[in-house]
Parts: sequence; C-alpha cells; structure tokens
Amino acid sequence: MSTSTSISTSPARGMRDMLPKETALRDWAIGRLVKTYEKFGFTRIETPAVENITQLRGSEGGENLNLIFEILKRGDKLEKAFAEHSTDTTKLIKELSDLGLRFDLTVPLVRFFAHNQAQLPYPFKSIQIGSVWRAESPQAGRYRQFTQCDIDTFGVKSEIAEMELIQATAEALLDLGFEKFTVRINDRRILTALVRFCGFKPEQFDTVFIQIDKLDKIGLDGVKKELLNHSFDQEAVNKIISQLESATKTSSADALQSVWAPICEPEIITGLQNVMKSIKTVSKDRYSISFDPTLVRGMGYYTGLIFEIVTPGAAHSIAGGGRYDKMVGKLSGRDVPACGFSIGFERIISILLEKEIKTHSDIEKIAVIYDQDRDPVTEVFLKANALRKADRHVSLLPRKKDMRKQIDGLVADGFAGYAAYHPEKENLEIKTLSIQ
Amino acid sequence: MSTSTSISTSPARGMRDMLPKETALRDWAIGRLVKTYEKFGFTRIETPAVENITQLRGSEGGENLNLIFEILKRGDKLEKAFAEHSTDTTKLIKELSDLGLRFDLTVPLVRFFAHNQAQLPYPFKSIQIGSVWRAESPQAGRYRQFTQCDIDTFGVKSEIAEMELIQATAEALLDLGFEKFTVRINDRRILTALVRFCGFKPEQFDTVFIQIDKLDKIGLDGVKKELLNHSFDQEAVNKIISQLESATKTSSADALQSVWAPICEPEIITGLQNVMKSIKTVSKDRYSISFDPTLVRGMGYYTGLIFEIVTPGAAHSIAGGGRYDKMVGKLSGRDVPACGFSIGFERIISILLEKEIKTHSDIEKIAVIYDQDRDPVTEVFLKANALRKADRHVSLLPRKKDMRKQIDGLVADGFAGYAAYHPEKENLEIKTLSIQ
Repeated sequence: MSTSTSISTSPARGMRDMLPKETALRDWAIGRLVKTYEKFGFTRIETPAVENITQLRGSEGGENLNLIFEILKRGDKLEKAFAEHSTDTTKLIKELSDLGLRFDLTVPLVRFFAHNQAQLPYPFKSIQIGSVWRAESPQAGRYRQFTQCDIDTFGVKSEIAEMELIQATAEALLDLGFEKFTVRINDRRILTALVRFCGFKPEQFDTVFIQIDKLDKIGLDGVKKELLNHSFDQEAVNKIISQLESATKTSSADALQSVWAPICEPEIITGLQNVMKSIKTVSKDRYSISFDPTLVRGMGYYTGLIFEIVTPGAAHSIAGGGRYDKMVGKLSGRDVPACGFSIGFERIISILLEKEIKTHSDIEKIAVIYDQDRDPVTEVFLKANALRKADRHVSLLPRKKDMRKQIDGLVADGFAGYAAYHPEKENLEIKTLSIQ
Repeated sequence: MSTSTSISTSPARGMRDMLPKETALRDWAIGRLVKTYEKFGFTRIETPAVENITQLRGSEGGENLNLIFEILKRGDKLEKAFAEHSTDTTKLIKELSDLGLRFDLTVPLVRFFAHNQAQLPYPFKSIQIGSVWRAESPQAGRYRQFTQCDIDTFGVKSEIAEMELIQATAEALLDLGFEKFTVRINDRRILTALVRFCGFKPEQFDTVFIQIDKLDKIGLDGVKKELLNHSFDQEAVNKIISQLESATKTSSADALQSVWAPICEPEIITGLQNVMKSIKTVSKDRYSISFDPTLVRGMGYYTGLIFEIVTPGAAHSIAGGGRYDKMVGKLSGRDVPACGFSIGFERIISILLEKEIKTHSDIEKIAVIYDQDRDPVTEVFLKANALRKADRHVSLLPRKKDMRKQIDGLVADGFAGYAAYHPEKENLEIKTLSIQ
C-alpha cells in the first residue's frame, strides 16, 4: 500500500533513543537522587533548553563555547542578517543564529538566579536534572545530548555549604548502590599559593596547573619532565616537585597544617580541615575523603574549594564540583557566594546498567491475551479491568500465532503472569510465569 | 569588584524559567501520570530533543512545519553549504541547517518505533513526557518550549487499543483531581462517509471538515452560511446540515445505529458503540463519553477513531488523540496499526496551579539556623545532621540580620520548624512554625 521513502529512521548523529529498560533505570535513578537531595533542603528547578546565543557565548564555558548547537534565526531576522552582511561571510555566519542549546546547567542556573532572585529564598539551594547538548565528534560512550545532575547553593560563604553538597552527593551515591568511593578535595587558593610560593609567574599558573593535573597518570617524574620541557625556571620546578612529594605523602587532615601552613593563609587550611573532619564523621566509613593537592578540576570559574568523587573500577570521576563566588557578579554586577556539585549522570547509568538493578520490585505485571478477530472486545476489556489492583499492572495484548514464542516474550518483558480470554469461562484465570 | 555586562538575564523570548513551586507541581503531576499509565501496561521511553531536519520536514506535521527551530550546520558542512549556493540565497537558507528541535512527540515516536522495532515488545505501548519547541509568536499562555504527555499503542488493530488509551487517560485525569469531564468521540471514516453521502467531492472534504469543526462556536446556521460562502453545491449543503441536525440530537450509543447505519460501514458503527459502552461501564459515572459527529481533530494523519476530553471551565480540550494506521508505513514501508492519546500538560498544570495542590504532604521541612561568622562550622553541621530522619528534610541556613523576617520567609517556603544553633546548648531544639 504505502511506499518507503528515503528518509533514515536513525536518530540524529551522536543522539540516542532510550528504550524502555534504560528509561526505567534512568527514571528510577532520578527519583532516588531527587529524594536524597531534598532531604538536605535542595529543591528542583528548571531552565529552558534554549538560551540566547549572547548568553552562551558570553559565559566562561571554555572549550564548550566551540561546541554550541546554534539555532538559525527565522523570518525577517534572518533576512536582515543576510542583507546586512552580504559581502562578509565570516561575519554573516556569526549573525545567522539568535539562540543556542545549553551546553551545561551552570551557565543557565547563574542566569536563572540573577533573573529570579527576588522570588527565590535566600540562600537558594537548587537541584537541576536535565539534558545538555554539545556538538562533539561522536565516539563510544560520548553523546551529543546527555543528562547532567547538579546541586548548587547560592548565598552561603561558609564551608558549611560545601559540607552539605558533599554529604548530599555521597548519600545519593550510596543510595544508588555505590560504595567505597573516595571524595578528593583541594582548594584553588592552595594551588595558586603553591605555584606562587615556588616562584612561578602568574601568567604561567594555568600551564603549571595542567601539568600538576597529570600527576595521577604520569607520576612525579613525568610532571617534572613536562615542566622542564616548558623551560620554566629550574629552581621553581625543583621546589614544586619537592613540595608535591611531601604533600602527597601527608593526606590526613591534621598533617595538612605542617606542610601547607607556611604557604597558605591559615583560614584556607582550617576550612579544608573542617570539611574533611565533618565529612569523615558523617561518612561512618562508608566512603572516604582525602586531600589531594594535585586536584585541579578544569573549569576556569572556580575560586575556592574543589572536589570530585572517584570510585573503584571507573576510569573517570563520577562527580565533580567546587566554589565559584564570582560568576553571579559577572552577570548581575553583585557577587554572590556560590558552589555546586554535579554527578556524571551518564557514567552512573552505564555502571548501573551493568548491575541489572530491579527498578519495580513491588509491582506484578499481568498480560491479558485475547483474539483480535474473534473475541468480544467489550467483554475482554471489562474482564481484564476486573483484574486491576493497586500493586498489579494489567496490559491487554492480542494473541499471536505462536503462543509459546509470545509467552517467552512476556517473560523477557518482565510479566509475572498472563490470563487468556476464554468465551466459556466466567472469570480470567492468571497463570504465573517464572521470571528468569 | 566585578562589573555588570550588558547581557540580559531574561530567558530567551517565549521561554520560561520554572521556579521551585511550579517545578514541584509539575514533578508531582508527571509522577502520578506515569504511575497511572503504567497500570495499563504502558512503559516510558525517550527520544532525543533534536532530529534530522529531513525527518521533521518530511513528516505530516501540517502548520507545525513552519514553526521548526532549525539548528545551524557546523564547520565544514556549513562552509560547503555557502560554497555550493553562493548565488541563490533562498536555496542557501534551506541548506544552512541539518538538525531541528522536535515540534511534537508523535513524529519522533513513529521514527523510534520504525528504527527500534526489533528490540521492542509487539504490540508496543509507550509513555512519552517531554519538551517540544515551536517558533510561535509568544502570547499569554503560549510558550515556545512546552511539555507534551502522550501514550501510544503500536500493533493493535482492534478498538481495544482505543478503550485502553481512553480509560488510562481518564483515570490519570481523575487521579489528578479532575472530575465530571467528557470524552468526545468520533471516527474520521464517519466524517468522510458523511460528506461523500451528501455529495461533496473528495477535493472538497478538508474544507468541509474545517467548517464542521466550527459548529461548537458558530452553530448550525453559521456552518451553513460558511459552506454556502465556499460556493458548494446548494443541495449538498442542505443535506449535510439536515444530517448534522438529526445527528447532534442523538448522541447515545444505541441511537447511533439509526442515524448512521445508512451512511457508514456497519463495523465502524459497531466499533464506536463498543468503545462507548465499555468506557461508560468503567467510568462508573465519574466522567462521561459521548459521540460527537462534529469532532474533527486537526491533524491530517488520523485514519479512524478520534477523541478528546473537555472539562467544565476550560475553554480548550485538555486531551486529544486518535488512530493513525498509515504513519509507520510511510516511514518503514510496512503499515502498523497505531493510536495515541495526548494530555495537554501545560493546560493541566495551569488549572492545577490555581487549585494550590499540596505536593509533599508527609515530609516535615526543618531549617537549622547558624551564624556564618561566629559558630563552629563542624559542630553546627554535625548537630544539624543528627536531626535528619526519613520523613524530615533538614536544611542548613545562615542567620540573617532580621530574624523575624527570616522566620516569615521560612513559613512562606513551607518550613514546619527551625532550630537555632546555640553554643551553650547540647542539642538543637526544634521550634514549630505555624504554616499558613
């Protein structure tokens, strides 16, 4: 009857369809995460997927600014862009779009807070779970649309905000079945003090940070080699390597003082110690926290404590965050203390998918099988309805030619039983299926 | 310190920020809707927000095709478009985008089903709740990003599929507190048979449907006038008006037979009667169902039963749907019976917002107040933590200068109590707040 067109049915490049099993797991995980975060006083908010392109381009998004999906202007606006820049293609391309898809949840959140502050509680503690889009080259495990899951606190200058973020995130991960993970913590101001103390110049700081960040992978000798390759002052390099050597040997909260006190302002050390002690107490040894002077975290906007969570068996961190006290001010003209912690939702889900979590434990799924061509539809419908109750899902399904194959399919889809309509029987009888 | 830039903090034109109160209501409604739909064997799936532009442009989206937010090509692809169409701006504009934001959930769902059929149960019954985007002129109550909430069944040719869709949607609305609403039902094939019977020509059908659709607003005389204005055959017009007159007087399931049997194939009437009888039984008079021969439903892709739900006090229908048996075939080359029912989520939410629904009845929210500059942070943090329990949310908040104003704020934000840290007291004492 109908003829196939040449349109592909694949999702767009780098995008994914979510089938029922993965969607159920994602919904289950989101429900649990929100429930845990709410216990700590965070509340969910949402921003649009689309932001003004000026907003996105003007943010401190670093590399992500090159990955924005830009939205074409429409109608008169588009015509105007062509009319005004007909001779300069480079300029025209910049003027073709007025909107873009958000590439993270932090840039929109800062705009949201600056815009709605008068209607929000202060301090304001938000949960955001939503899609973000980046035009990256697709590769295994990296997608162009993915979910982020962030909590953020605006308006608290004390490190109690960080304690709450870390405890809430750790409890959320424990609740999802993660265990024995480690919170790594550092302070951007310690990193800065360290490189300054060793004699590097301010314009060299970022390059030095990037090398320190590699310590995990290439070791102290590797870092030394890299730093010397950049022709930094030999003495500064020796000094920082010796400092890092003694620092990485002493990760306990108390030992912090002896190594870092000569370099940092005392309140930075105290803040770090307070967070470590507090989290150690509430962790009850279900997870650990350790100071890591080599932790850098990529984003340019961090101003204080930074932290991430690593778990055995995962190559990358599963959560990351920190304090960013200057971001609101850049938009609204008035600084507001702020910090956030983001769970790598896609990483979490890919780990949970392997664990085969059961997401609907207390519900019994029953199929009612009928013959589409022969059975009286109203009677089938009403008899199936009589089977419904609070802890049972009932789904009407037409009989297939191969009944054995159909039953195998029901088992695979998680049905606990089925009832076949029979015209001579008064009530439907449920036959139990053994779930594999 | 920091200086304000000229970037606006408003959301993009026609887009909305969702504040905590509305987000809580939306999350609550989505949770309830999913729970009801699952009782009927529907399972949630997700498609990407972004589809290939060819996919969107090639669909039967009607008016919506003019409202697509198109995404600009990137890098080499964009350069190639400019190089190939440098002399023809109209053509160039068509070639500037490779992707677009989805404007509904049905077009992506049909693609999803065609693409993933081998991995899906058959029949396949989906729940979709997600954002869609349309570049409409923003006006009161109409937004450029909004949520749709659809259930669809693929692979059931019997009208049992429609019964299930209607019952599930009605139960979902009842569960959200809607009552005394009416399901209006018709069949596209009845409309077609009617206009054919009255002597209209196939190319006139769509115009006649559009006029019939206005009957609610302009009455029979109005419809007659409009039809005559289109210079249709006088006799055909008289015939359809008289037919509609007798039809609108007889909306019961049994009376259907006498009016429509001479015009339609009997199985169409039987199907309609089956659905009406079945739904009347399961409704238990909590809502009603009535045949409406003037119901048209706008979309071009409907092939059989069509239905919508109207509720007292709402100007527009709050749900709409129907059967679209040809849509999968147009994409995959093989027809698959399909039908769906979509709740107008934004309309539902705006009605619920006015009702002031309580979304978190069993949770007690407690604030722990401390002095950011003086109180020992670790001790405050640990004492607050000791107050946490399953049915209590605890949030740490710095003390404000005006304590009375702060307490008023806590009441407004739904806190049930607060505890102020005091260095001389061993434990925190909760003071109850009276919620207004």
